[in-house]
Amino acid sequence: MSNPQDRLNEPTLSTRGLQPENKETPISFLNTDIVPSHLFFKRNHFSYPKLTYSNYWLPINGLVKTPKIFSLQEIVKLPSKTIKVILECAGNKRSLFEPKVFGEQWEKGAISQGYWTGVSLTTLLEATGINPKAKEVLIEGYDKGKRTDKNNEYSYSRSLPLDKALDPDTIIAYEYNSQPIPFKHGYPLRLIVPNWYGMASVKWIKQISLISSEFKGPYQSIDYVYYPNKENDTDSFPVTIMNVNSTIQEPVHMEILNTGTHVIKGIAWTGAGEVSKVEVSTDHGDTWLEAEIEPTYRSYGWVSWTYEWSVYDPGEYTIMSKSTDTLGRTQPLKPFWNRKGYGYNAIDKVEVKIE
Amino acid sequence: MSNPQDRLNEPTLSTRGLQPENKETPISFLNTDIVPSHLFFKRNHFSYPKLTYSNYWLPINGLVKTPKIFSLQEIVKLPSKTIKVILECAGNKRSLFEPKVFGEQWEKGAISQGYWTGVSLTTLLEATGINPKAKEVLIEGYDKGKRTDKNNEYSYSRSLPLDKALDPDTIIAYEYNSQPIPFKHGYPLRLIVPNWYGMASVKWIKQISLISSEFKGPYQSIDYVYYPNKENDTDSFPVTIMNVNSTIQEPVHMEILNTGTHVIKGIAWTGAGEVSKVEVSTDHGDTWLEAEIEPTYRSYGWVSWTYEWSVYDPGEYTIMSKSTDTLGRTQPLKPFWNRKGYGYNAIDKVEVKIE
Repeated sequence: MSNPQDRLNEPTLSTRGLQPENKETPISFLNTDIVPSHLFFKRNHFSYPKLTYSNYWLPINGLVKTPKIFSLQEIVKLPSKTIKVILECAGNKRSLFEPKVFGEQWEKGAISQGYWTGVSLTTLLEATGINPKAKEVLIEGYDKGKRTDKNNEYSYSRSLPLDKALDPDTIIAYEYNSQPIPFKHGYPLRLIVPNWYGMASVKWIKQISLISSEFKGPYQSIDYVYYPNKENDTDSFPVTIMNVNSTIQEPVHMEILNTGTHVIKGIAWTGAGEVSKVEVSTDHGDTWLEAEIEPTYRSYGWVSWTYEWSVYDPGEYTIMSKSTDTLGRTQPLKPFWNRKGYGYNAIDKVEVKIE
Repeated sequence: MSNPQDRLNEPTLSTRGLQPENKETPISFLNTDIVPSHLFFKRNHFSYPKLTYSNYWLPINGLVKTPKIFSLQEIVKLPSKTIKVILECAGNKRSLFEPKVFGEQWEKGAISQGYWTGVSLTTLLEATGINPKAKEVLIEGYDKGKRTDKNNEYSYSRSLPLDKALDPDTIIAYEYNSQPIPFKHGYPLRLIVPNWYGMASVKWIKQISLISSEFKGPYQSIDYVYYPNKENDTDSFPVTIMNVNSTIQEPVHMEILNTGTHVIKGIAWTGAGEVSKVEVSTDHGDTWLEAEIEPTYRSYGWVSWTYEWSVYDPGEYTIMSKSTDTLGRTQPLKPFWNRKGYGYNAIDKVEVKIE
């Protein structure tokens, strides 16, 4: 018989919901920097769309000079680029807010990264031309359904300001880690918007339209908006770029360890500039020491860091990590609470007991 | 091409640790009462043992009249029984304790049930006979390793008092849901102790010994003991039978729902007697109404229950479930806090928002 005990212990996605499917990456248990597609977190607003691939076309219309409809074959023949990009759900770490907020209770794994290959959106827009009145680029996905707060059916649609849409690293991707994008992650075409939270990276693209005014769809003007107050909408502003952030992968929260030397390891990332340092504290934040950052080319990915911790006194310890980016943004001790629970980036913490 | 979007959304185990492997059943997302083996929670103290099945024998020795060594072939030829049994990790729901306790942060899914087939331990002991001096039956597993609080290597061993060992429903199981027990769940032989927390159901049985005194191994006298005090061991007592308990499966915590009628559903179980009622409150516990219990034959399994909830006022609600057993045990509002975090059975709660 085979030797089943020799099978590796593989991590698995954690299920947050099935209707629609929402599953979290086992972020503490990744053994690679590039998340394999079966461990990429899944975040859906609706059930999966029904697509007919044999008849798939991408229309670009609205305020363009020449509307065009691209076939997949045309798109894959255009010059392509491959970039390492993080996708982080805006609700990543939502479960950590106090007071608690409603919505999917993501822990620390609504984030993944890998290599996306596709054509710059700007390459397609060069083919159609742009009408000078165009202000935003609206991307509509094939996924659609009802919302609890509305009666109509909505498709998942988001717009980008023109400058972000024209950034050559904003791509229409068709491969993830050198394979066709898995259906559940947006096959055949998915927008990839580096540095922005994942809600911008529309899956299953149905059409792209250039528009002259601010798009007001519910996934832009109701969801993915920071509401600082529980009872009213004053001072709200849209969710866009990722906050500077870090996550401790090892040890895990509430783990029991021996005295001796332990490697504390984690990841750090930002949606603006580069991560410039990661600091670790093992004494509730009284003293901070710099972690060692792996000298990887970051592109739009995260950095991995480690910190060697020698501990000889049994007891309870709080380990904290804090990252800072080249723009001087740094993780706050307390998160910016907002009613829908976006953008959590407080200093990360795990507690351990040393025996 | 195939139609990948038609694939069902399947729930998956949540990873709590990989060294050793500890994974949690997606308890809210089961679509069957009998947990398939790939969704059965995994709880290990050590890395998986290396077994040579071709040379597998089960010795029964110590205070018996005639020590015997059984082959697998002999065991499967003996009269067998199949019983539906819950295994619940004593640490199930540990993450809900306040103050927090160290150890695996199990949420509500360190529990599974299904059909176990095997031979009564008492049938084997009839073959060996029992020396009148025997007080306990010691079951040793092939899994072993080091502990953070000790220097020696220990095997995972647990004893049962003689009366529990002789209960005809305490079985040496070789099948789960009519298939050989998966290796990671104890193949080829696993003890199944109905009504007790899962630590009693030793996997990969290496030998069984009858002993005259109380067994003091670390998984009996250090772990799986309730310590009511943080700082000392006074008033400690062993973990044995499962507490009366219930878990709300739907809705999930912090879910956002429409006004209208929703089915609240869950499971309830006990380690003594039968579940006699399940009550649900949707107003923070001010009023309680009885849920409908599915008329399943319980055996040693859980009962499923539902409660139809009609809600017309938008707002935030706390849904609670409370089960009571035929011995009059009922779930408390506050859990019995203990230092190692066992036996959590406070009234279950989920919060929802109605829009």
